[in-house]
Amino acid sequence: MSPRPLITLLTDFGTVDGYAAEVKGVILAAVPEAQVVDVSHDLPTQDVEAGRLALARYWRRFPKGTIHVAVVDPGVGTGRAALAVASDGRLLVGPDNGILSPALLFAGARAVALPIPASASATFHGRDVFAPAAAQLAGGAPVESLGGAHASPVIRRTPEPHRLADGGIRGEVITIDRFGNAITNLLAVRGGSVDVAGSRLQIKRTYADTADGEPIALAGSTGLIEIAVRNGSAAKVLGLKRGVEVVHRRE
Amino acid sequence: MSPRPLITLLTDFGTVDGYAAEVKGVILAAVPEAQVVDVSHDLPTQDVEAGRLALARYWRRFPKGTIHVAVVDPGVGTGRAALAVASDGRLLVGPDNGILSPALLFAGARAVALPIPASASATFHGRDVFAPAAAQLAGGAPVESLGGAHASPVIRRTPEPHRLADGGIRGEVITIDRFGNAITNLLAVRGGSVDVAGSRLQIKRTYADTADGEPIALAGSTGLIEIAVRNGSAAKVLGLKRGVEVVHRRE
Amino acid sequence: MSPRPLITLLTDFGTVDGYAAEVKGVILAAVPEAQVVDVSHDLPTQDVEAGRLALARYWRRFPKGTIHVAVVDPGVGTGRAALAVASDGRLLVGPDNGILSPALLFAGARAVALPIPASASATFHGRDVFAPAAAQLAGGAPVESLGGAHASPVIRRTPEPHRLADGGIRGEVITIDRFGNAITNLLAVRGGSVDVAGSRLQIKRTYADTADGEPIALAGSTGLIEIAVRNGSAAKVLGLKRGVEVVHRRE
Repeated sequence: MSPRPLITLLTDFGTVDGYAAEVKGVILAAVPEAQVVDVSHDLPTQDVEAGRLALARYWRRFPKGTIHVAVVDPGVGTGRAALAVASDGRLLVGPDNGILSPALLFAGARAVALPIPASASATFHGRDVFAPAAAQLAGGAPVESLGGAHASPVIRRTPEPHRLADGGIRGEVITIDRFGNAITNLLAVRGGSVDVAGSRLQIKRTYADTADGEPIALAGSTGLIEIAVRNGSAAKVLGLKRGVEVVHRRE
Repeated sequence: MSPRPLITLLTDFGTVDGYAAEVKGVILAAVPEAQVVDVSHDLPTQDVEAGRLALARYWRRFPKGTIHVAVVDPGVGTGRAALAVASDGRLLVGPDNGILSPALLFAGARAVALPIPASASATFHGRDVFAPAAAQLAGGAPVESLGGAHASPVIRRTPEPHRLADGGIRGEVITIDRFGNAITNLLAVRGGSVDVAGSRLQIKRTYADTADGEPIALAGSTGLIEIAVRNGSAAKVLGLKRGVEVVHRRE
Repeated sequence: MSPRPLITLLTDFGTVDGYAAEVKGVILAAVPEAQVVDVSHDLPTQDVEAGRLALARYWRRFPKGTIHVAVVDPGVGTGRAALAVASDGRLLVGPDNGILSPALLFAGARAVALPIPASASATFHGRDVFAPAAAQLAGGAPVESLGGAHASPVIRRTPEPHRLADGGIRGEVITIDRFGNAITNLLAVRGGSVDVAGSRLQIKRTYADTADGEPIALAGSTGLIEIAVRNGSAAKVLGLKRGVEVVHRRE
């Protein structure tokens, strides 16, 4: 147990209504020495997939012992389980809807189902279930002490690319980032080019390797091919969104 | 006095212009060990009511000793008072325009009027009056040492529902949250149904107790009736906004 | 070296994609006791000028020893230098594109060029170059130990006003803030009036010194003349944006 537990928060609550602040208050009332770190409260509402993709980026960047709270929860108040997870030295809490998949899929992950107290509201488990669980973990409680083992958590996966008969690899856009860059599920390991939205783009090194307003393909910061437009939005210029086909070519 | 004073910030300053950062800098220059917690800087500009409603949600969730800074301040530079308040073990600072009402209305609240230093700008008391006052409180100064008693602070109240001749209770929408849920001023204690925007909605338990895209009434997380649409926005689907009438029926 | 290093973050990364969280994770993995303070992640994408203007407001408000990370980086992956700067007791890191100008122009500033490790991605130096540099500084490394002296950093300056033949001073709008206030480059030291967008506005003291919806000129919180509309947006009402001419008159 760290002398100053680190607790990150990822939600779709926004900040304006005070919901995220309620979560912080519950945590800090229980563990006043905790360091609460905002990841985001601005996820698109109910967008579990956006939460999963964000979590995949950052959960292992934080030091071991960090507690990650991730709550996008369209199923709140239903029978969906509430999870606490220990994975690669980090601890996570969130609904059992796939948002925690990056940690659940990591070797050695252990998940337990949190009990839902009778006093919990039926609409705000972020405050009434997940914040108290995070506080317990921050206080040093082992994850197994919080609930019974949960054997088959819901898993969401990035779709796998497929090899085509002509040797190309067909993938797709998995998300659009704030810059309008389209991140694909294609590993950027072989150079070559991509076919996307009727264009063939050579894979280059960085955003500046093309002219202003021109599209480019390159290796993004997680090693996946992304489509960008220099000083512009690839999503707008090429009409890209989640699910659009992208084919990697060797030449 | 805590070894690590907790100071929350609620403003309509946004983050882009650097105003909120100036406030943080002033606080941390005076009290480097303080823990500054963002509630929100994205309140609709000049919307004192939105600030009041958010503050009502979170101010008592934080531990005793917490200092809450809440600044939405259309009257900055006028004769409006600047307040420091002690209430239920928490301390608050903000303009005397009703934003602090939830704490001021709590039994035993004490308010003082902060002096406005000659050096303060006429347009940014968040930086020049409220941040220094928060820093003084964080340093252990009692609220009474910051100014003279302020007997009649401005109070804003949620409108009271009224009983109708036919036995119904007429209330209204008091705010729309980020999810498009419409929060009303009606206590959710009796089951029954609500009439809103030409529809009668039975009161259910949670968002999932209806079909996708369908409206529902339920008890929200503060015990008030709210109108929601499953995986959608009640505000959009039903055309709801602050002030729209909602009538609670027993049947 | 402080027992709890203070590190502020200013970026155009947004929070939703997890990029800002990766930066925080890298810093906190290296310096778990650091206090990471969000300034903003919501700068308009690629808007170095917005970053420079925000930084100018807050960098000296924080206590000496603070480490400011400021990353708006359209040139990432090109030959542009990556800087660490010591200025007036604060430390700063960011790309060499002018965003750090307020600190670089301060008397006694020293800048070094950070080496770009071969392992750094070509698209995300916030995570791979600037966060590690901030962590080194937080660990007590002197700025000179991070790289070789960088003699001619890129400097961006607010345009200077010019005196007109008729005695007026011609300046311009340098930014529009969240409230729709137009901040100019004209010092508010002489009273008088301004000509802007076809109107002549007397310089008043505060926003409330005019009627609702009416434009007003006044001294803003950094001592520059700003154009506002009471309970409205001067940018919208008067059609103001960066670069619009504003002439100060004595009468």
